[in-house]
Amino acid sequence: MTDLRGIGASKGIQIGKAFVLQSPNLSVKEYKVNDIDEELVRFEESINHAVNDLEKIKDHVEKEIGEEHAKIFSAHLLVLQDPELLNTVKDKIKLEQMNAEKALQDSANQFITIFESMDNEYMKERAADIRDVSKRVISYLLGEPLVTTSDITDEVILIAHDLLPSDTAQLNRNYTKGIITDIGGRTSHSAIMSRSMGIPSVVGTTNATETIKAGTTVILDGQNGTVIVEPSEEEIEYFKGKMEEEQEREEQLKQLINQPSVSSDGHQVELAANIGSPKDLDTVLENDAEGVGLFRTEFLYMDRDRLPTEEEQFEAYKEVLSTLDDKPVVIRTLDVGGDKDLPYLNLPEELNPFLGFRAIRLCLERDDIFRVQLRALLRASVYGNLKVMFPMVATLEEFREAKKILLEEKENLLAEEIAVNEDIEVGIMVEIPSTAVLADQFAKEVDFFSIGTNDLIQYTLAADRMNENVSHLYQPYHPAVLRLIKQVIDAAHEENKWTGMCGEMAGDEVAIPILLGLGLDEFSMSASTILEARHQIRNLNYEEIDRTVEDILNKRTNNEVESYINKHFIK
Amino acid sequence: MTDLRGIGASKGIQIGKAFVLQSPNLSVKEYKVNDIDEELVRFEESINHAVNDLEKIKDHVEKEIGEEHAKIFSAHLLVLQDPELLNTVKDKIKLEQMNAEKALQDSANQFITIFESMDNEYMKERAADIRDVSKRVISYLLGEPLVTTSDITDEVILIAHDLLPSDTAQLNRNYTKGIITDIGGRTSHSAIMSRSMGIPSVVGTTNATETIKAGTTVILDGQNGTVIVEPSEEEIEYFKGKMEEEQEREEQLKQLINQPSVSSDGHQVELAANIGSPKDLDTVLENDAEGVGLFRTEFLYMDRDRLPTEEEQFEAYKEVLSTLDDKPVVIRTLDVGGDKDLPYLNLPEELNPFLGFRAIRLCLERDDIFRVQLRALLRASVYGNLKVMFPMVATLEEFREAKKILLEEKENLLAEEIAVNEDIEVGIMVEIPSTAVLADQFAKEVDFFSIGTNDLIQYTLAADRMNENVSHLYQPYHPAVLRLIKQVIDAAHEENKWTGMCGEMAGDEVAIPILLGLGLDEFSMSASTILEARHQIRNLNYEEIDRTVEDILNKRTNNEVESYINKHFIK
Repeated sequence: MTDLRGIGASKGIQIGKAFVLQSPNLSVKEYKVNDIDEELVRFEESINHAVNDLEKIKDHVEKEIGEEHAKIFSAHLLVLQDPELLNTVKDKIKLEQMNAEKALQDSANQFITIFESMDNEYMKERAADIRDVSKRVISYLLGEPLVTTSDITDEVILIAHDLLPSDTAQLNRNYTKGIITDIGGRTSHSAIMSRSMGIPSVVGTTNATETIKAGTTVILDGQNGTVIVEPSEEEIEYFKGKMEEEQEREEQLKQLINQPSVSSDGHQVELAANIGSPKDLDTVLENDAEGVGLFRTEFLYMDRDRLPTEEEQFEAYKEVLSTLDDKPVVIRTLDVGGDKDLPYLNLPEELNPFLGFRAIRLCLERDDIFRVQLRALLRASVYGNLKVMFPMVATLEEFREAKKILLEEKENLLAEEIAVNEDIEVGIMVEIPSTAVLADQFAKEVDFFSIGTNDLIQYTLAADRMNENVSHLYQPYHPAVLRLIKQVIDAAHEENKWTGMCGEMAGDEVAIPILLGLGLDEFSMSASTILEARHQIRNLNYEEIDRTVEDILNKRTNNEVESYINKHFIK
Repeated sequence: MTDLRGIGASKGIQIGKAFVLQSPNLSVKEYKVNDIDEELVRFEESINHAVNDLEKIKDHVEKEIGEEHAKIFSAHLLVLQDPELLNTVKDKIKLEQMNAEKALQDSANQFITIFESMDNEYMKERAADIRDVSKRVISYLLGEPLVTTSDITDEVILIAHDLLPSDTAQLNRNYTKGIITDIGGRTSHSAIMSRSMGIPSVVGTTNATETIKAGTTVILDGQNGTVIVEPSEEEIEYFKGKMEEEQEREEQLKQLINQPSVSSDGHQVELAANIGSPKDLDTVLENDAEGVGLFRTEFLYMDRDRLPTEEEQFEAYKEVLSTLDDKPVVIRTLDVGGDKDLPYLNLPEELNPFLGFRAIRLCLERDDIFRVQLRALLRASVYGNLKVMFPMVATLEEFREAKKILLEEKENLLAEEIAVNEDIEVGIMVEIPSTAVLADQFAKEVDFFSIGTNDLIQYTLAADRMNENVSHLYQPYHPAVLRLIKQVIDAAHEENKWTGMCGEMAGDEVAIPILLGLGLDEFSMSASTILEARHQIRNLNYEEIDRTVEDILNKRTNNEVESYINKHFIK
């Protein structure tokens, strides 16, 4: 049998029978309808079925996966209420006596073409929404119900061309042991969802749905991105052994709960979690995070049609702060603009959004929006250990201006006799090279740094991390990146301040020894990797790495650094 | 009288009578034609008139302004030969009995709409070409000849809404003393052309054509971007005085020809010129450039429909090298992709072209294109003092790979018994932060550095230099930028290599003292500013700046640096 190679998107090994997700035949024929009223009713009914489906899915996802992931279904439901789309369909039925499925398909395609031709990521996503939703309605009109992941009632490995949001949403976590897809990369929807649900997955295998027959036994290794089809007995034995090792390892890691994150020679660091909404708090507590190193506040602003109120924000911040008790919580102020568009703000279209009008640049210009968020943060500050962080700071003037506005709002609140915590630290993301290079001067004015490696790497190497043509230049171990990180950490320590890191790199096995050696104080990562990182750090000798850090920084390439670390510090 | 403010686009003061360029009334009516054949002939004749015009203009521009600037008229001539456009017009005449001017206007608008809706700068320019050309043809059809700049027969200040390429092309340099436009910025066509013709200009005044009546006296200051309308006697006297000062200054600067570029205390540097094509060589020689610090080779690839041959390239490189004799000539290999598109290469569309697949990244992938250029360079090397420079290098692997290909082509040529200079230096542009930070390691492998500040600044501050919303973050004196520059220069000197600079900054009055103090070896700039720079350097004391460089690098903001330099080193 041919084995398949793809991209390991969610780690773990699984062995099981293949469940191949087949799309039903939804091809649509055109015919003239005689009874127009009847056809309109048929259309309405199918819409209602689809609405019911989507509402169920949305509830399920909200409970099982998280509120943020449920938002896409709110968007889908909005499509089904869009009078422009519905009236276009109804007009075709009424005026052209067109059958409902053809009328919907034509109308949907019309809107999809318009949205896709727009040079705007948000509108392109709307096109995908319309496609997904109209498929569902057409399936009801044709009486060809969609075969969905909810039909999985036994333990299986799911094979699909790609997983739509509605597919992952209906997935039964108890039965779906692994996921294999034809298309997608590490940041595709399927990949992100499988990671957040903790289901091992291999994406981008090109032809899994063609190659693998339903019922075949497959082994999936989500670490290496390999799929073995119809494995031999020896292969099954071998991988079962590996699965047991994995399970043992997980049990072992649980022993580290309530243990300090400290190197073998006593150098202690803080392991914190990155979160996107209060829904993520359970995982934070389960994995014994020592704080929240990055609370992204964008979820409050996205997938809606107006700005969140001060009250809505206050509630979210308060929930996170009070749940974390006295543990530190770093909340980042709004980081939108550029690729993360908020349609209701009418932001300018830009040729290079990653080098554009975003985050603090936007907030300083639109301080009406900024002040609402700062007030909410200040009010919530009395419920925990808040640290406020400004994103995308490139100059000291920006930091000074942002801090000035924060202090103004604090004065305003005090004048209104509203309590505010007096000990809020105010820091910045270091994700722009200028700020890393000038960290010694910044350190005199900020309370802390948190290095955002995802952006720092892409600016330092001038390579868009989302662009496949230059993805080979997205090099986390490039000695220049490591030197900038060292400069930031040293600059902070010189002024008795601390430095954290909240990019992907903070949880990366190869990066952790280097970062420990460079003296990073706080590592903030996806909560599910915290215990793994704690385990690694407890087995590293700080003094030993510290002695070799100079050598590492004098390597000439990303690969030289990676080989060196793999050879000396990874078991 | 109201005075106007705009953007000083080409410096110099002028006083003169206003010549206001009025557009004729080209509004088109639709009517049915009876004699279709006659109408077709009328259309053909107007096309021929327009072709004649354009060919004359093109010749004039080639001789007076430069081949590169004439290319737009080749593009216009192509529009007039485009069978798709012409047939659409003819069909409308034949099938709809439509009059030619209406048929042309409709067809042109049709194409313009299509091209403008494309997300592609090249196609958008084609829309502008069609607009410009069809206007010319329609003016013939209507018997309303365009009032053009060729009607200027006396010394005037030209006032226009905007200058089209055809306007600037027909401009008589002896009569046109200054240019004022309503719209445009420092990089608009009008601005670039006025600088390259050495005509003082103020662009973007918003309403000059409305405010200024023909024949009015105006004073224009292209340095400050101010326009005084109907000046008083005192104002005229004052500005006449300033004009005389300017003239004296120019005469003084000419005294510096054949003088060394050396500070008052004997520290010598090289002042070189940036050029875009061999046409620029006259200005290079006139202004006594000590070499060419940057020869951009894109002109060979742009505004055409196929790649240039090895022979075409060889001729261009040979011309520059032999004209410069034994003076150094740094030729940069192809820097396209991203925003500089070559339509015939079908490059991928990118979300962030400035962080994308361009320059050396493209050349290493498409080494078929790269090898042709390298062969042409190697063959030309025997005619002068060639230094080859690779753009957009972010990693040492890229440099090694590019150099390996160069050496392979050298071996190939030697095997073919074609002579190659044995002493070609091979260097890189330093325009990506990673390369500046790791300059000490790069310096061990490259022969020289040339700092490309335009890109280095935009990546270091993560601010697109073409984006108005973040243009305040394009900060050349940001201490982080200066520190990176210092790192590069020091790294080169440590290995006995040299560092040049070929960005705008190298010719900037505020930057020059800092760069001198940092030990920059070669300053490469627009040829017309070389004597000015030489004058400035001859009046600076190197030791004095050297002593204060440390202080400058410890400033905290762009503004602090600028004020400091203005106070201490600018007279």
